Formats: sequence, structure tokens, C-alpha cells
Amino acid sequence: MTEKENNSFNLVCPPIIRDKKNIMLGHGSGGLLTHELINTTFKKIFTNPILDEGNDGALINLPVKKGKLVVSTDAHIVSPLFYPGGDIGRLAVSGTVNDIAMMGAKPLYLTASFIIEEGFPVESLEKIASSMKIACEEAGVVIIAGDTKVTEKGKGDGLYISTTGIGWLPEGRNIQGQNALKGDAIIISGTLGDHATAILQARGGLGFQSNVTSDIAPLNKMLEELIKQVQDIHVMRDPTRGGLGTTLVEIAKQSNVCIQIEETNLPIKKEVKTVCELLGFDPLYMANEGKVVIILPEEKCNKALEILQKHKYGQNAVRIGTVIDNKQSRVLLRTPLGSNRVIEMLMGEMLPRIC
Amino acid sequence: MTEKENNSFNLVCPPIIRDKKNIMLGHGSGGLLTHELINTTFKKIFTNPILDEGNDGALINLPVKKGKLVVSTDAHIVSPLFYPGGDIGRLAVSGTVNDIAMMGAKPLYLTASFIIEEGFPVESLEKIASSMKIACEEAGVVIIAGDTKVTEKGKGDGLYISTTGIGWLPEGRNIQGQNALKGDAIIISGTLGDHATAILQARGGLGFQSNVTSDIAPLNKMLEELIKQVQDIHVMRDPTRGGLGTTLVEIAKQSNVCIQIEETNLPIKKEVKTVCELLGFDPLYMANEGKVVIILPEEKCNKALEILQKHKYGQNAVRIGTVIDNKQSRVLLRTPLGSNRVIEMLMGEMLPRIC
Repeated sequence: MTEKENNSFNLVCPPIIRDKKNIMLGHGSGGLLTHELINTTFKKIFTNPILDEGNDGALINLPVKKGKLVVSTDAHIVSPLFYPGGDIGRLAVSGTVNDIAMMGAKPLYLTASFIIEEGFPVESLEKIASSMKIACEEAGVVIIAGDTKVTEKGKGDGLYISTTGIGWLPEGRNIQGQNALKGDAIIISGTLGDHATAILQARGGLGFQSNVTSDIAPLNKMLEELIKQVQDIHVMRDPTRGGLGTTLVEIAKQSNVCIQIEETNLPIKKEVKTVCELLGFDPLYMANEGKVVIILPEEKCNKALEILQKHKYGQNAVRIGTVIDNKQSRVLLRTPLGSNRVIEMLMGEMLPRIC
Repeated sequence: MTEKENNSFNLVCPPIIRDKKNIMLGHGSGGLLTHELINTTFKKIFTNPILDEGNDGALINLPVKKGKLVVSTDAHIVSPLFYPGGDIGRLAVSGTVNDIAMMGAKPLYLTASFIIEEGFPVESLEKIASSMKIACEEAGVVIIAGDTKVTEKGKGDGLYISTTGIGWLPEGRNIQGQNALKGDAIIISGTLGDHATAILQARGGLGFQSNVTSDIAPLNKMLEELIKQVQDIHVMRDPTRGGLGTTLVEIAKQSNVCIQIEETNLPIKKEVKTVCELLGFDPLYMANEGKVVIILPEEKCNKALEILQKHKYGQNAVRIGTVIDNKQSRVLLRTPLGSNRVIEMLMGEMLPRIC
């Protein structure tokens, strides 16, 4: 066959051979196979009145109270798709739910678009969708719209999921990156680097066994309780890609403040420390998916810690530092010897495809 | 080097060699390179007060009038990224804007998440972002949140973009797939299959030159005018993937009606007809990206056609059929000889990666 003949041949509609176990290009055609996949997998698992309408757009009624809408979006390309403590489905829901929650808002709705590589097992897709459903239930959100596309084999990596979250910010709440003030205390809700370590382990890159599982979790319920009981929170942010170091530099720049954290106070699991020492990683830059940095007035710090520590996702919450100046836009790490190291944003890429 | 040594080597943070012309894995790290890319490309091009805040979530105020929110999401994986009449950027904006507009809603905001393959030229990314910006301006929407992830070379195909749209549906409007009624007229806003033909041509799959360009366009302004002047519209839907045939079957099922269309009335460009005849494609299943099917009471049909035909995206609008029965959930195509062919949803995949 000449190249041209071969080309034309590929363009003609192939006979339908249904592969019930694996995703075919036809599942992204928008035609019958797409409808079947949506009905037998996504709609079956995610079923709710808004999604089930089946129109081009999902219709939602908003709370009647005054407030603002909060919108956030994330693409998820984590490799591998399944890892100790989670999978891309739990990640896609929790990551976006957390971004909404960081603004002090209540996550309500999610959209999800799936880019699936031809040949991907339908069973894995169902497992991931079920994991999304469980995370949605935990967070109290529903998936109201979706889209499915299929790429040729070799043009993806199994599955990519993009999620967009919509939340409601009640009037009077103002929790943003620019609100840190001199004197504020800085809290981290738990240990650093668990997610990155779990991913490393799943990739077989450690060369030894570790028991660290990903911390991935929707934090909105814990944070809602915190906000209700400690009203005066200035900043919340989840230190995901780029880790705590990058997140603090972002906040220092947005608020134009100088942040000082104490190296000895940073909560890091022994196994994570070992991994970092062996591989030359810095836990300050390792990704977390179920942690939050909270910046609030010093006098509220103990109450906040008490509330967080009662919650399963905040048991190891601890104060790690202070906003020491209303200028400079920088982050200092005080070492056990008392010297200060300037923390910059993560340079380059420590570990790609982390979330 | 043994395999294990090689593995460990890859895990250690590589020295930063900045490639200013191409996307590096570090651009997806969430660290410094990500911030630089966002600031020098995305924020520079998409700048608006909501996006520029730079928090985890975008804050939006909603219209004070009564109504509902309409939300829609799409993943875009079109290949090639640039084609006659458009590119993935114009597609990502128009596709989502149109889904919102099909509900009779006014598109207001978009989110965009980018999955970029390592090595992708920054210049192409800027070209695509600029094209998105132009389409946003035409549609009257702004991009309020985004995300950037980078996959290793060979795990993507240049660029995938997922967009989510948020629109506002004023109270009293009810345009949905389940509203078609016996006696309604069916309009198509223009010629069929232009987008699919343009993609085919760009892939070099035609074996000859054609002058067909993609019809890709945001239709919301035209449809807003139509709704204001012809209030009683029952259904609007854009026949994208799966084409007019699949779209009509979807509507027939949702409304439980029998739809009859006239083959001789289907507007198809001569070049598209030729392509279909040569390659064995059926224009009924070819994708469109700037067309809309409108179903409305017969007595409103002429006025609607008049309004559409005045608009650049509706010049070739024509009535193509009628809802002939309030049951059966099927679509009939009346041929020039007077016989009726039952139209099913697209089976398999005619042309993958079309949108």
C-alpha cells in the first residue's frame, strides 16, 4: 500500500468492533459509543438531578443569601494514576475543592473533563470515577457537567482530568493571599511532603519500601468549622506543587510582608526525612495535597490549633512561624543554629507529574 | 550506569537550564518557572481584574437580577492545533461559549486549564493564548482562572486545553433539549461539515486542495439577538462532534418526538460534498463548530430565519425540517425520492481529534 492509500484508508469510517474492556477512539466521537460510555460509567456513578438533565450546560440555582461566587480550575496529570493513599480521581476532586475552600468559600459544584488515551481500561476508568464520587460525597459537592475526549495511543498517558469548582463565599468573609499582617502567626495543618513521597514510592523510585501514603483529602469541612469558630483568619493556602516554600513566597509577595519560619517546627515524618536526605530533596518544596497554611492573628493561634488538631486531617497541626515585618516580600527560614536562610520559589522541577 | 543509578539520577533536581523558546517540565512545577510563564504569557494576554488577583479561586459578583447559573465544560484535543479558519484557542473559547449560549444563557466567564507537552514552542502557546483572547473579546467573556501542567515529551500532543464556562440565564428563559413539540420547525444556521473538512485538509488527508475553512465562531451574540426578538424558542443545540445527525437524535430522545428533515434542504458546500463523496463521509455526521440547530414554533420560523440571515454567522440559515410527531424518539431523513431513512447516532469514529 502506498503512503497515500494508507492515509485515505485511515480516514474512512472503520467497521465497529466493540471493545467492551478498553476505551476506543469512538468513545470520543460524540456519537453512540460516547453516549454509551457516559450512560454506563459517568452518569451511573455521578448521577444527580443537575447532571442527569443531559443538556449542553448544567443549570444551577444559587443560594439566596448575599455573597460571591468562587471559581477555580485544575488540570491533573499525575503519574502513576494509582498510588498509596489515593488516585487521580480523589486528587482531581480534592485539589479543586481545596482551592475553593482556601478562599473561605463553600465548594458546591464541580465539572470534570476527561482526556483518555485509546486503550485505557474501562475498569480503571470506573474505579477512578468511583473514587471521585467518594471524594465528592466527603466534600459535599456534586459533579454537574462533564466532557470526554479520546486521544490516539501514544498521545496521552492513560488519563488526564481537568476539574473546575464553583463555590459560594458568604458575605463578610475575606480570606486572601494579600491579607497577611505583621504579627500574624503561621500554622501548617500537618506533615510536609507525604504526597510527593507516596508518588515517588509508587514510581518505584525510592529503591526501598516506605509506609508513607499520600495526604490527599478534601479539607473544606475542617476549614469551614475553623472559620466559623475563629472568624478572623487572614490567609489560607494549600501548599501543593512547589511545596510550602513556594506557597509562603507567593503569600509574602502578595501581602508584601516578611515571613519567618522555624526549621525545627516543620512537621516532617521520619520516612519523608530519610527520602529527602537520600535523594537530595528539600521537604520545603515537596508537594502536599491535604495540607493548608493558615495565617491569622497571633491571639487566635492556639484556638485554631485546638480546632484543627481535633480533626483527622489536622491532627499534626502546628505553628511554624510568624509574619515579622510589613515589608520586604520575602521568606526566612531560621535554622536550629539561629541563622536565617532566604527561601525562594522552587527552581526547575523536583518531581514532574505530581498532581 | 546501572538502571537503578539512572533512576535515582533522574529524581534529583536538575540544574536549571532555561529554555526561553520551549516549554520545559519546570514550567509545570508550580515554582518559579510556572510563575514566570503565567506572568509573561497568560496574565499578560488575558489580563483582567478578577484573574489578576492571583488567588487559589477567582471571586465573581453575580448579576443582581433573578435567574440561574449555567455551567459547561469541554476538553479540546484537536489535531492539528492550527487549521484553516482557526486554532485550538479559538475552538476552546467558542466551543464552551456556544454550549452556554445553547441554553439561552449569556456566557460571562471562562476558566482554562492547559496540559502542555514538554518542548512545545512558547511562541505557539502565545499565539494560541492571543487567539483565545480575541475569541473572548468577540464573545464578551473573560478568563478568570487557569492552570498549567506540563507532561513529558511523548505523553501528549503539543497542547490540550480544557475550558469551563459560566453563564447567566435570565428568569423566564427555558431553552432545553426536552422542549421540542409536534409542529415545530427546525432550522440550521448554516452549511454542514465545514469544520471537519478544514481539519481533514490541515491533516493533508484530502489529497487535493480545498478552500473550506472551519466555521468555528462564538454564536452567543447572534443567539441573544434571536432570543430577544423571537421569544418562543424551544431548543437550541450546536451540532459539533457527531454532527447534525447525532444532535437531532439526542433531541428526539430527550423530547420524545419524531423529527423529519429534508435531505434536499441540507445546506452543504460543494467542496464539502465532494470530500464526502470521495472519502465516504456522511455530512450528517461531520462536525461543525459555528452552527446551531434551532427548534421553534412553525409560525416563528420565518422571522427567526430573517434575523439569522442578517448575521455573519447565520447568512446561510435555512429550515431543514419539522417535528412531525409527539412520540417515537427518532429522526427521519426524507430523500429526494420521497423515502424516509432512519437516522441513528454516529457509530464508531469518522474522524478522531476533531475538537
